[in-house]
Amino acid sequence: MSSSSSKSSAPAWAQPTRAQNVSLPPLLVHNSLTHAKVPFVPLDPAGRRVTWYCCGPTVYDAGHLGHARNYVTTDVLRRIMRDYFGFEVVFVQNVTDVDDKIIMRAREIHFFKQYVSQHPTIDQTVLDDVRKAFTWSGANLKKANFPSDLAPAAFAEWSKSLIAMLAAKPQLEDDEVKLKNKLASLGKVAVAIQNPPLATEFYAAIEGVFSEFLGETLKETIDGREHGIFSSFSQRWEEHFNTDMRTLNVLPPTVTTRVSEFIAENVSFVERVVEKGFAYHDGEGSVYFDIDAFERAGNFYARLEPGNRNDAGKLAEGEGALSAVKRKKKSDRDFALWKVARPGEPRWPSPWGEGRPGWHIECSAMAGAVLGSQIDVHSGGIDLAFPHHDNELAQSEAFWYEGAPRQWINYFWHMGHLSISGSKMSKSLKNFVTIRQATETGEWTPRRLRIVFMMGGWLGGIEVTPEMRKAVEAWESTIDNFFTNVKALAAEEQQRGYSPQLFRAQEAALYADLQNSQNAMHAALCDSFNTPAALEILADVVSKTNVYMRENTKTAAKPDAYLSLAAVSEVARWITHMVRVFGFVPGNDTIGWGSGSATSSSSAPAEETLEPLARVLSRFRDTVKQGALAASKGGDGAVFARDMLALCDTVRDDDLPPLGIALEDRNAVTGEPALVKFAPAAELVAAREEKRRIAAEKEAKKEAARLELERREAEKREKARTKPEDLFRTDAYSAWDERGIPTKDKDGKELSKNQGKTLLKQWEAQRKLHDQYFPSSGAQ
Amino acid sequence: MSSSSSKSSAPAWAQPTRAQNVSLPPLLVHNSLTHAKVPFVPLDPAGRRVTWYCCGPTVYDAGHLGHARNYVTTDVLRRIMRDYFGFEVVFVQNVTDVDDKIIMRAREIHFFKQYVSQHPTIDQTVLDDVRKAFTWSGANLKKANFPSDLAPAAFAEWSKSLIAMLAAKPQLEDDEVKLKNKLASLGKVAVAIQNPPLATEFYAAIEGVFSEFLGETLKETIDGREHGIFSSFSQRWEEHFNTDMRTLNVLPPTVTTRVSEFIAENVSFVERVVEKGFAYHDGEGSVYFDIDAFERAGNFYARLEPGNRNDAGKLAEGEGALSAVKRKKKSDRDFALWKVARPGEPRWPSPWGEGRPGWHIECSAMAGAVLGSQIDVHSGGIDLAFPHHDNELAQSEAFWYEGAPRQWINYFWHMGHLSISGSKMSKSLKNFVTIRQATETGEWTPRRLRIVFMMGGWLGGIEVTPEMRKAVEAWESTIDNFFTNVKALAAEEQQRGYSPQLFRAQEAALYADLQNSQNAMHAALCDSFNTPAALEILADVVSKTNVYMRENTKTAAKPDAYLSLAAVSEVARWITHMVRVFGFVPGNDTIGWGSGSATSSSSAPAEETLEPLARVLSRFRDTVKQGALAASKGGDGAVFARDMLALCDTVRDDDLPPLGIALEDRNAVTGEPALVKFAPAAELVAAREEKRRIAAEKEAKKEAARLELERREAEKREKARTKPEDLFRTDAYSAWDERGIPTKDKDGKELSKNQGKTLLKQWEAQRKLHDQYFPSSGAQ
Repeated sequence: MSSSSSKSSAPAWAQPTRAQNVSLPPLLVHNSLTHAKVPFVPLDPAGRRVTWYCCGPTVYDAGHLGHARNYVTTDVLRRIMRDYFGFEVVFVQNVTDVDDKIIMRAREIHFFKQYVSQHPTIDQTVLDDVRKAFTWSGANLKKANFPSDLAPAAFAEWSKSLIAMLAAKPQLEDDEVKLKNKLASLGKVAVAIQNPPLATEFYAAIEGVFSEFLGETLKETIDGREHGIFSSFSQRWEEHFNTDMRTLNVLPPTVTTRVSEFIAENVSFVERVVEKGFAYHDGEGSVYFDIDAFERAGNFYARLEPGNRNDAGKLAEGEGALSAVKRKKKSDRDFALWKVARPGEPRWPSPWGEGRPGWHIECSAMAGAVLGSQIDVHSGGIDLAFPHHDNELAQSEAFWYEGAPRQWINYFWHMGHLSISGSKMSKSLKNFVTIRQATETGEWTPRRLRIVFMMGGWLGGIEVTPEMRKAVEAWESTIDNFFTNVKALAAEEQQRGYSPQLFRAQEAALYADLQNSQNAMHAALCDSFNTPAALEILADVVSKTNVYMRENTKTAAKPDAYLSLAAVSEVARWITHMVRVFGFVPGNDTIGWGSGSATSSSSAPAEETLEPLARVLSRFRDTVKQGALAASKGGDGAVFARDMLALCDTVRDDDLPPLGIALEDRNAVTGEPALVKFAPAAELVAAREEKRRIAAEKEAKKEAARLELERREAEKREKARTKPEDLFRTDAYSAWDERGIPTKDKDGKELSKNQGKTLLKQWEAQRKLHDQYFPSSGAQ
Repeated sequence: MSSSSSKSSAPAWAQPTRAQNVSLPPLLVHNSLTHAKVPFVPLDPAGRRVTWYCCGPTVYDAGHLGHARNYVTTDVLRRIMRDYFGFEVVFVQNVTDVDDKIIMRAREIHFFKQYVSQHPTIDQTVLDDVRKAFTWSGANLKKANFPSDLAPAAFAEWSKSLIAMLAAKPQLEDDEVKLKNKLASLGKVAVAIQNPPLATEFYAAIEGVFSEFLGETLKETIDGREHGIFSSFSQRWEEHFNTDMRTLNVLPPTVTTRVSEFIAENVSFVERVVEKGFAYHDGEGSVYFDIDAFERAGNFYARLEPGNRNDAGKLAEGEGALSAVKRKKKSDRDFALWKVARPGEPRWPSPWGEGRPGWHIECSAMAGAVLGSQIDVHSGGIDLAFPHHDNELAQSEAFWYEGAPRQWINYFWHMGHLSISGSKMSKSLKNFVTIRQATETGEWTPRRLRIVFMMGGWLGGIEVTPEMRKAVEAWESTIDNFFTNVKALAAEEQQRGYSPQLFRAQEAALYADLQNSQNAMHAALCDSFNTPAALEILADVVSKTNVYMRENTKTAAKPDAYLSLAAVSEVARWITHMVRVFGFVPGNDTIGWGSGSATSSSSAPAEETLEPLARVLSRFRDTVKQGALAASKGGDGAVFARDMLALCDTVRDDDLPPLGIALEDRNAVTGEPALVKFAPAAELVAAREEKRRIAAEKEAKKEAARLELERREAEKREKARTKPEDLFRTDAYSAWDERGIPTKDKDGKELSKNQGKTLLKQWEAQRKLHDQYFPSSGAQ
């Protein structure tokens, strides 16, 4: 009856109406719902509050520069909205901590770690298990015809032509990149099986393939009602993400919503969509969205990317790797709202049995729970537009449906991609530099990342070419040098105390330049957050000010020249204000009166500096106190004392070096206090590690010597096992005396006297050896 | 012909028109030109730039709290315009460094210093000179009939009744205050002449009277073409002013205009007013504004205070002390645009001969030179409204006159007075506390000054009563404690790394409270910068948040309580933002990338900051270690534990407060760590001392009670010492039975039955008491 799937253009977008007498900046922003710039009008009748839902991280690995691109760019937009346009932005961002990727990766890590600890040495069992993983992984290679009995030794030969074929291609498809990566992994496994190195190296070489194998084959041993394996894993990566965001000076969300903490809201959201007739239970514990029913009611599916509404590949990817099994769906396009739990998957109760929310429903449910039935802005990476955001739209429009189609989101803003030297940065393609790597190695600083993302604009893809990098560095040093110069002049002028304050045609012109730049900035930011233009405007006014400064600096040739520091400072002040707005100035959102406290004339203690040390001290004291309390209530004083000694070492060796503090113990018994030293933290940590390395080496040598001794002892004992009378019972002789000493050789010939003497000596030695180890066996 | 002087109401103010499609906040501001709140519409057709001229300081002395009131309040308004409403404010402020007060005071200081250095000892010449000054100064006393031959020795007697009369008045007129001050100065001179102390003290005592005398009598020796005497004086006080403004965190002007650097602009301004026929040369080197001519052309004089247009006193004061000589003016009301130089006055060339600009013309000329023919905002202290600002308006309207009256200034904002405990703070009445005194003695902090000025609102006068001071301190500590608590919780949560992120009804309510506060703040600031309401709104949302925090903190009774730090931080973030807007956060305009540089990851360790804390930690650790070592070598574990508990208290109470660190112990038994807080050291130490004082008091009371008990016990024991048989062995009786109970009185008379009964009772009681304390003594 319905031919909705043939629809290819979305219904018209309704421009939000501005309440009368409300003042709004003339801001136009590109909207993915219209594919054009449209006036921004918030729902708030006062025109001041803006609600914003942003798709946050799925926490199962370290964020890479592609993520930085997304979150930093979003942060720039959010800050412009808040600090330039003055909107009160309520920014809600989720954390996806229940997800197919997390489930799989958490299981893999869990079983792999378990396996390694249970098999510290690479014995035949291990080799057999890895061989199984090799075969299993090969069988899963797509389009490769991996022979099921291929020996690891034959892998190199077998894969040669495939690798050559891939290498010859100028540009690889995503599937081909994945194949190439998989072949490399299998290659490493094949080598490791053939020549097993020491355990650490061996496990490092096989981890990718083997952990995947273990995760898949052992998953059913997990009790899905116990979420520990999954939550400890996702929590670790969420913390990692948060640390990265702090490094990048990205503002924390106003509200963070975690899927694991919103299960009840998800369930009731799905229930209501089912009640409305836009979703159905498949009878096996899963619930699917009914696209046909939704469209029959006059709604439209895939507003953002109508052209993709039947793209099977994208739809399948959106469903997650753990759903790649045929289920009882009415239509292939229908997507899961609730997924029945299969063995080894975390599970929560629901009216349809135990399971978990589908990926898309999370966002709809959590955004609705916090922000209500209509939202101003929804943002995310461009990758998420279809099917994720289109499915979100459908679900939420279904949930809030009251007889007529509705516009759940007014503005959809999608951040573009990041490519580095031509190839897209992507986790699944294993083509990425993590944020931590980039910032810790100094390849990028947080500031330069922000500059490059602003230079690229938010909407389009960014390709980081060497030229672009140069442009970033040039812009940074233009601003940097300007700040340095003005600050130096200001310090000098303040030192001098009194200077002329002229306002001549030159100064008037410079103030006019500044005013023009401010107008241009306003126009640029109102033009869909045109950040590339914004950066140019700043560099441009700096260059004009530099000309003014050059022309008006006192020199031998121009002894009467006058430079208005007030004018130049005003330019610098405005640039500072703008880089602050753009999020370049860390600590701008720090709570409180600011560091230079106005309470007392003495400068307030540098909290940020003291904080970590104060925490070490407090933690130390807490531990001492708890121990002392326990000991004073009948605990064992000796145990307490031993614990305290260990704690003192921990404070010295673990806690303080990263803070740049070295304690040098002197004689604690005579009461001489430790010497407190300050040194760069990196140095102290390195020194500590070196000390530990040397100690570990020494320990290892000792252990090796012990093992060697043991081995020799075992050899000797083995040798001693032979009784002296059995020592010569071999084919080499044909007759023996009563002690077992040979008398004739194998041909029946009498042994010579000399031969007899030698044999007797050997016999005596063996008797001594045997008696030493087996005294009771009574050899004579 | 003209009866303009009878006009008493100013012409209608023209509301500036808003360009089409320009977005402006719904800001209403009180305008002295309308005496009512009117919509604020800047001249800039884009609605973004605001030009503002502010009357700056006349630099001849240290600024007092009345000045602080004016400049800090103006700063608050300027910051709200810039940082809250987002206008690009061009703020021009003058420095009046050519002025009658400066001329007189500079001369006085110059000649006095010269005299002191030429007369290091107090000889007869000095005494004779000072006697001359005494007589000269007395003769200048107004309405006092000072006898020209009055001897210093007779001054006290002569002035007695005058002083008593002034002291008896409940409220003094300004003139009377000045008389009272003068009498005090003359009294000091009279005493000094009679009993000359050492030179330093002598000159300190006579400085006021003597320097005035020297300035007046020696002025003609100065060459007015040499400005050094005047400029070195004014420069010193300008620097003093600038330092005060930095202390008070007042933003520097966008452009500062000094009169001495704008003489040419002043001359040409006057020329043009003369050309237009609105001013005339008096033929003796001065130029006056022609009020009648101005009004005849259809203009209006004294727009701001039409009622004062004929106030001779105010008009004279506006002309300056050096103009109090009859000149050839057409009308008494006409005021000087250019003043002919008399001997001893600094002078510049002009078409009318050497002279200097009048006070009012400075502002018109300089404002015009920088900001052009029309200005959005003009501000200043309310004292300046008439005649200064009215004269400025007249001059500028005359200067820019093109056949029809014009509105030179659209918005005139006047800051109210400051009174402390009922009397107006004023330089000329010598009733003031300088900014430096107030801040250096700690009587006021810059922050509290800003709070009190905001609490009083900008428009009205402020009277600082003890109640108001309390309100200031209460507001500050409300905000302060909130910041401290939130920061401590945030640091702890970041340390913990992973915490739940719930969004329940409680959190939704708190976010709603925040939103309501933000709306209320917008309404308050749009309501003519209603800063008292703004402060109340902040305190109010803090108190709501405190309730939320109290109700949702984990305690023994509520182990499952959950507190959303995200929600609380959002409130704190907004409050920080607002106190930043209001100018409470120093360094907000510091040029550059900010302190936490984003360039390099390694920040230099702040050794000086860390050192004391590191030392506390190390000492603590030393003690723990020594105790543990001793305990582990056979010492007493229980004693060790007790010592450690005491040590933990010492660290918390003695070591850390002076470093600005407060540890708040929570439940050590359940393992909840102490909360680490940062606060000013002085506060923490004071709080600790208070706690100790209360504890000591309690201890003292307990001890007193114990001693009282002991005393009573001793008394009782002493009483018990008497054996019952000895109890009545006194002269009161003459016969006793065997138990020692009297049978006859001292006269040998038998005791009555009743008497016997009473004595028996007493005897029984004593027996019981005695047995209790001396059981073994076996009383019978």
